[in-house]
Amino acid sequence: MRPRARRFTASGHLIDSGLLTRALNLVLEAGADYEVVSFVMGRTRTDESSVELEVRADTEPALEALATRLVDLGLWDRAPGDVQLKPAPRDSCVPDDFYATTNRPTEVFLEGSWREVADMRMDGVIVVGGPGPRCRLIRDVRRGDPVVCTNRAVRIHPLFRDAEGEEFGFMASGVSSERSVSVAVRRVAEALAREKAAGSRVIVVAGPVVIHTGGGPALAALVRDGYVSGVLAGNALAVHDIEGALYGTSLGIDLATGLPAREGHRNHLRAINAVFRHGSIAAAVEAGEIRSGVMYELARAGVPYVLAGSLRDDGPLPETEMDMLKAQARYADMARGASIVIMLSTMLHSIATGNMLPAWVRTICVDINPAVVTKLADRGSGQAIGIVTDVGLFLRTLADALQR
Amino acid sequence: MRPRARRFTASGHLIDSGLLTRALNLVLEAGADYEVVSFVMGRTRTDESSVELEVRADTEPALEALATRLVDLGLWDRAPGDVQLKPAPRDSCVPDDFYATTNRPTEVFLEGSWREVADMRMDGVIVVGGPGPRCRLIRDVRRGDPVVCTNRAVRIHPLFRDAEGEEFGFMASGVSSERSVSVAVRRVAEALAREKAAGSRVIVVAGPVVIHTGGGPALAALVRDGYVSGVLAGNALAVHDIEGALYGTSLGIDLATGLPAREGHRNHLRAINAVFRHGSIAAAVEAGEIRSGVMYELARAGVPYVLAGSLRDDGPLPETEMDMLKAQARYADMARGASIVIMLSTMLHSIATGNMLPAWVRTICVDINPAVVTKLADRGSGQAIGIVTDVGLFLRTLADALQR
Amino acid sequence: MRPRARRFTASGHLIDSGLLTRALNLVLEAGADYEVVSFVMGRTRTDESSVELEVRADTEPALEALATRLVDLGLWDRAPGDVQLKPAPRDSCVPDDFYATTNRPTEVFLEGSWREVADMRMDGVIVVGGPGPRCRLIRDVRRGDPVVCTNRAVRIHPLFRDAEGEEFGFMASGVSSERSVSVAVRRVAEALAREKAAGSRVIVVAGPVVIHTGGGPALAALVRDGYVSGVLAGNALAVHDIEGALYGTSLGIDLATGLPAREGHRNHLRAINAVFRHGSIAAAVEAGEIRSGVMYELARAGVPYVLAGSLRDDGPLPETEMDMLKAQARYADMARGASIVIMLSTMLHSIATGNMLPAWVRTICVDINPAVVTKLADRGSGQAIGIVTDVGLFLRTLADALQR
Amino acid sequence: MRPRARRFTASGHLIDSGLLTRALNLVLEAGADYEVVSFVMGRTRTDESSVELEVRADTEPALEALATRLVDLGLWDRAPGDVQLKPAPRDSCVPDDFYATTNRPTEVFLEGSWREVADMRMDGVIVVGGPGPRCRLIRDVRRGDPVVCTNRAVRIHPLFRDAEGEEFGFMASGVSSERSVSVAVRRVAEALAREKAAGSRVIVVAGPVVIHTGGGPALAALVRDGYVSGVLAGNALAVHDIEGALYGTSLGIDLATGLPAREGHRNHLRAINAVFRHGSIAAAVEAGEIRSGVMYELARAGVPYVLAGSLRDDGPLPETEMDMLKAQARYADMARGASIVIMLSTMLHSIATGNMLPAWVRTICVDINPAVVTKLADRGSGQAIGIVTDVGLFLRTLADALQR
Repeated sequence: MRPRARRFTASGHLIDSGLLTRALNLVLEAGADYEVVSFVMGRTRTDESSVELEVRADTEPALEALATRLVDLGLWDRAPGDVQLKPAPRDSCVPDDFYATTNRPTEVFLEGSWREVADMRMDGVIVVGGPGPRCRLIRDVRRGDPVVCTNRAVRIHPLFRDAEGEEFGFMASGVSSERSVSVAVRRVAEALAREKAAGSRVIVVAGPVVIHTGGGPALAALVRDGYVSGVLAGNALAVHDIEGALYGTSLGIDLATGLPAREGHRNHLRAINAVFRHGSIAAAVEAGEIRSGVMYELARAGVPYVLAGSLRDDGPLPETEMDMLKAQARYADMARGASIVIMLSTMLHSIATGNMLPAWVRTICVDINPAVVTKLADRGSGQAIGIVTDVGLFLRTLADALQR
Repeated sequence: MRPRARRFTASGHLIDSGLLTRALNLVLEAGADYEVVSFVMGRTRTDESSVELEVRADTEPALEALATRLVDLGLWDRAPGDVQLKPAPRDSCVPDDFYATTNRPTEVFLEGSWREVADMRMDGVIVVGGPGPRCRLIRDVRRGDPVVCTNRAVRIHPLFRDAEGEEFGFMASGVSSERSVSVAVRRVAEALAREKAAGSRVIVVAGPVVIHTGGGPALAALVRDGYVSGVLAGNALAVHDIEGALYGTSLGIDLATGLPAREGHRNHLRAINAVFRHGSIAAAVEAGEIRSGVMYELARAGVPYVLAGSLRDDGPLPETEMDMLKAQARYADMARGASIVIMLSTMLHSIATGNMLPAWVRTICVDINPAVVTKLADRGSGQAIGIVTDVGLFLRTLADALQR
Repeated sequence: MRPRARRFTASGHLIDSGLLTRALNLVLEAGADYEVVSFVMGRTRTDESSVELEVRADTEPALEALATRLVDLGLWDRAPGDVQLKPAPRDSCVPDDFYATTNRPTEVFLEGSWREVADMRMDGVIVVGGPGPRCRLIRDVRRGDPVVCTNRAVRIHPLFRDAEGEEFGFMASGVSSERSVSVAVRRVAEALAREKAAGSRVIVVAGPVVIHTGGGPALAALVRDGYVSGVLAGNALAVHDIEGALYGTSLGIDLATGLPAREGHRNHLRAINAVFRHGSIAAAVEAGEIRSGVMYELARAGVPYVLAGSLRDDGPLPETEMDMLKAQARYADMARGASIVIMLSTMLHSIATGNMLPAWVRTICVDINPAVVTKLADRGSGQAIGIVTDVGLFLRTLADALQR
Repeated sequence: MRPRARRFTASGHLIDSGLLTRALNLVLEAGADYEVVSFVMGRTRTDESSVELEVRADTEPALEALATRLVDLGLWDRAPGDVQLKPAPRDSCVPDDFYATTNRPTEVFLEGSWREVADMRMDGVIVVGGPGPRCRLIRDVRRGDPVVCTNRAVRIHPLFRDAEGEEFGFMASGVSSERSVSVAVRRVAEALAREKAAGSRVIVVAGPVVIHTGGGPALAALVRDGYVSGVLAGNALAVHDIEGALYGTSLGIDLATGLPAREGHRNHLRAINAVFRHGSIAAAVEAGEIRSGVMYELARAGVPYVLAGSLRDDGPLPETEMDMLKAQARYADMARGASIVIMLSTMLHSIATGNMLPAWVRTICVDINPAVVTKLADRGSGQAIGIVTDVGLFLRTLADALQR
């Protein structure tokens, strides 16, 4: 039997990242064979290496299966031919062999050249047409849209850790609660100051625990001082923040004494009722009813926010988006172009946001529960750096560091 | 100054529950005074006690404030007069002094008699009209609806732990992972067998961790064998269950080997795509494409389920309700009349369901994270009993126990 | 059959604490009967109630069994007769029906009067002789010692929550990480300031996580400023504190940068080696080799400390007590007379200390893991109040609060 | 300035493991330079690669510092000269520049050849003399012993994951509680069956949670059926196991009902007292007083065990070793030659044992708390594989799997 052969190329930090080894192992595991056509090794850490391999298998299907895995890894076909396109058989339904996207930079070979895919996110498909290839959620695919099938003629760039990425290196070495959080605070403070100076977008994803743990004033200060370009949250963050502004409690617990307040269990409902009376948070701020807190500072500074609803919401506030498809779309709009995303004690909103982010956005996840960070990484947001600590004290210390 | 006085009554396990002591302490803390008009002490554990107190304060407002707290506790005014009703000033907005409901049995005094409030749940208001007083979410209140204001002429029955409630007593003594789960399994199995025999409704609230941890076949068996009257879940449970049925993986991890499956990351998207091709889960079962799993058994047995969407959903499946207001309504419909609710590894859906349940529904919460149970209780579902364990092994052991 | 009867008395907050109800329930559960001979109800919260009950059972053994449980609860026999004493049959071995102590205040009836038992702790026995009744560990009992058997003629005072006990009330309402830690810090700071002013003993139990999380300088400041009367720790706390003082690392992690230090894995061994070169920590401080840190401040201020060894110790340092019987004895000596015990991120040393403390010593337990507090309470130290937070940030914030 | 040069060699899975890349990066970070003298790349996964590098730096100290780090990584000097030996200045104290061992296979160059170091463990030093180089704890070094200083002429073999190591591969991909534990159980069962057939040593390290969670009978069955060669535990495991055998409770909780047993808090003290009456556990088994449980099966089967004391022990039992130096020595003796070590819910004994194990012993750590596994790895036992689950159900399922 004459073996079938195809040539693949890769470049970048091939040894550093272990990419080359994984590639060679894949070939051998598949019972196939390879020959190194050329290999240029980078001499320094910043130099890139490049390799060209000829891969051989006994049958075309075996070769095809192996090729699929090599492309996923980050190699690409030297002679891809045009990407395969098939029309979607019906709305929100794609051909069986659709290509599922990752959150890494991706190109498709189209009419003789590699074309970058726009709006990259994980778990989408690539639709070609109009201004060029674009990542889409399957549910947004319309019947007849040309969908990229198989990863043949797809190029998925591996992400190599660059020097800049190492600014948070100390945190990246795993998720341990036995690390000094003061150091983490300092690094985050430096990063925020730098991004503010550079005019970059810093997005904060925040859960209601921020308010319960007394972190509200500190987050409000970050907003007031211009460190935050947008906030992604749920109904509860806003409700408890406004509850704190109006009655000094959060879920009925007095924020000053930590004791249950008299009739405190009514307060979150009263807060919602007060907003409904004015018609919106902005109107309640305008009318002078809400005079402090995160939502107040957001309204005052004109910093945009999205409140996504959830199944467990009381109220919800008039601003809360209860249609999850619309909420996802508004989250994705806000996250677009972010330079840093800081996730504060909310698994739901953090994973939702993580799903939408390209892998090159720096992501910091603060939670008292180490499992949250692990889960985020398990779901593909491998770039997330975890800080296991009390989010209230973290924010207070961060705001202090920035004010000095 | 002549003191103002009002008389309050209470009956039930007043000493056992500590209710009487709390009542007397409230009076003294308020700087007021009391006289015991009559006190009949129950001689045995099952006998009820009853008390009538005359409470005196220096001013009418002080007396009113104190009365509010006594009523919340479970005492009631001997001469309440009719409940106060005020019209809602606008849609989804109630008068400032609205009465916020608890999840305990509640009555209002109306036209000379105590009338039971229907559809009790926590964090609602009481609207009077039509067939009688009824608990409503504020957002469902329409302009002009007569809303109960203040708790004057409201009677909130305390819940006393009865003999039946003690069947799970061993678990109620706190949330500790250092307890033998085998015992808990046996008790839950006995309870399920009893409820099935009695034809009662057992509702299961389940998160996707059920599938990831290999608990899918066991839950499917419980459904097949008729122990489950309804399932409340999210999109992810159904997606990963169907992914398991079609491809043997859950989130891309092979359920048989625990290893990442080849191209496994595409599988949950393929599962969604397969359902879209048929148009619905039921259609895919009908067509013989889905041939096992929780969703398969539900479809076969005609057991109803609700899939609520969330911000982090992929897909979602066509059945998934993405409008959270509708999802809450459908959850509430399903939970109505439940005898036991079993919550399996999902904080979001568990708290959502807990919010809707009257306090007298027995609730069992299984999670590897003790914080989930604590949180549920913090939010008012104090009746929830926690079992801290691996949900996959728990379900397997439970299904084994029921099959013997 | 003529029923047998005995009379029991109790006084204190009988209703508030639920003691009376539990007593009556015990009687009825035992199939016995009671008559209330007298009952005086306290009119206010601070007034005590008192009760005398006649308890009747059909047989003497039944009455005896019931009496045992009533005494455990806090009632006492009106006519106890002298306590039962039996000689220990051999060293470290007591008669089968020995009375096992709790950590509550306890008396025994001896030669016509109630005599207080000295050195109360849980899980000991009571030996009579010499200066009077005294609590002893079973292993310290010598052959022939007169050991109190059964709880007949034992009086175990219930602990009622007093006004003072409520200073930490907000924390006592359960173990939740969703509380504002700032409030807890303020309360602890106030308590420490008050105890210092009063000249009371504050004992700190500290694990090495204090150092790893950057809390070392703050704890050192507390020692320097006179808030700490003694420290109970293990070898690791001292090793990593000295490692920090000498090389700026903790377990090899640079405390300033959070990054692994070059050859950092050797540092804890080098720290131990340095102390061995001088012969002791005090000598190394004296010689000017150790110039900062917790151990430095302890040595400088002459505040006593005990370092208990453990199975996992490196070294250990010359000061570390590796014989656990001696270590327990030295811990108990240090804990004696403490007014407040603060436990910082160490389950082992905290439970060990908790075992030795009478129930009336206020105990605060700080840990990022809520399970530690639960476990402490499960083992009888019910008075422990938990603060779930990052111990490093907690100590920093506490030291700041005290310096203001 | 003429650069100074030295040549280093390495062989093995240099690319796979990332070793070569780390080596080159170290050189460049140090501002030094390198030339690849020779490089042979392994063609298949099982083939080894080998490299010889010439490393150049401007000064001798710079070259020396760099060499230190390369040797730690796993390279070795082509012309090492004899290892440096210095006499210990005093008992338990070594020269400042002592070489601190890792748990990887290690050799020293002595009299012209590489000599293997015996008794490897982490955090020791190497003493030369008598039968050859040997790893010792610093505290066991005597004045005058020749101690290896600096890592010059030390060869530390990197550990490459081999095919066999992959038997537990699925678990190695991180610590997540969202994995099917059934799969893990099956793999562990297969491994235990294989080791038993091969006559290898399987050591179990077990905490008292094994008993509290109802895992006692299953562990007893494993012992009875010959799967266990030795048990490392503490006093509490034995106490609660015997408490279960004698009174059916564990820490006073009835193992059959999960409810607190009457006078149950005395039971662990009674268990200890019963053993003291007989003089030893073996004598109590012999006398027929203890008739079931883990300790019973160990005594019956003659399987050795070590009970190490701790600061928090009640009793302790006569067998418990309360001197930690002796306990560590006995643990180390037991662990020697182990093929698999299974750690069951005990951080203290697991870390202690992990410290003593060479890196090539397969280690499985079962705990409901993922932090325990993380901590074990943080402390150098990187080979530990974690299974996050309920240990009681795990053992039951494992014993079932082995009996089928």
